[in-house]
Amino acid sequence: MNIRETTAEDWPLIYPFFVSIVAGGETYAYPEGLTSDAARALWVPGPPTRTVAAMDGAHVLGSATMGPNRPGRGSHVATGSFMVDPGAQGRGVGRLLGSHVVDWARTAGFRGIQFNAVVETNTSAVRLWQSLGFLIVGTVPGAFRRSDGSYVGLHVMYLDLT
Amino acid sequence: MNIRETTAEDWPLIYPFFVSIVAGGETYAYPEGLTSDAARALWVPGPPTRTVAAMDGAHVLGSATMGPNRPGRGSHVATGSFMVDPGAQGRGVGRLLGSHVVDWARTAGFRGIQFNAVVETNTSAVRLWQSLGFLIVGTVPGAFRRSDGSYVGLHVMYLDLT
Repeated sequence: MNIRETTAEDWPLIYPFFVSIVAGGETYAYPEGLTSDAARALWVPGPPTRTVAAMDGAHVLGSATMGPNRPGRGSHVATGSFMVDPGAQGRGVGRLLGSHVVDWARTAGFRGIQFNAVVETNTSAVRLWQSLGFLIVGTVPGAFRRSDGSYVGLHVMYLDLT
Repeated sequence: MNIRETTAEDWPLIYPFFVSIVAGGETYAYPEGLTSDAARALWVPGPPTRTVAAMDGAHVLGSATMGPNRPGRGSHVATGSFMVDPGAQGRGVGRLLGSHVVDWARTAGFRGIQFNAVVETNTSAVRLWQSLGFLIVGTVPGAFRRSDGSYVGLHVMYLDLT
């Protein structure tokens, strides 16, 4: 398993699990029913955002985006987003992608990494980020509507790199 | 003083204090040196975002934007941004705009209002939002670079409307 920057050829391999994960309704507050082009514009917007894929040979197991969380006076803090093909879960793909983003942000000179919206019931993600050193800064109550219609909180998580 | 939706004619009256406030470097992490068109695209993006102006006759004293904080599964929480012409400070323009956004969000059926990035040293804003019922959910340490180069925290603030 290795990680590399995505190429135009990767997108058709990422889009199916992007759709599946968004439609699952448990982890991302993205618009639903995005066309492939609209989803690509979100996931692979280009610089200053960087998008990578976790590869097993020619298979894309997951993908991550990373870049400044804000422009201007907030651009010293990075952010990232992560998707793992549901068929590749349990193989450590999320951890590999998370570690990659932390290493990238540290090397690029960011002072920290902020995740703006981690669904509190997505406990495997919360625990993974905590194991990488992220802290829960706070939780916006009820800010995410799950697929069953219930409202759960969104964690703001932060890793200090200074 | 009254509040109304902005028209195309208002923008040339908003842009000067938008520039002044962003250049001041104490409150917003927007890109610096935005052209008028780029700043308008941020401040008056159109639906689902709504932009209003606080008017004193033909004078624009301040402006606010409001809309869903996230798409999809987060679209039941609103957000807002506020700018008051530095020449009109101390007249309650911010409070009037803030109350307007709270009333609008309640009427529109949002379950809450989230401010994603309130600079912790902008104490007049923090106190104003607290007086309207907002709570500090958490503070991302050092996420804002002030004009003097120091790093201060960004509060995530939330008002429950349920």
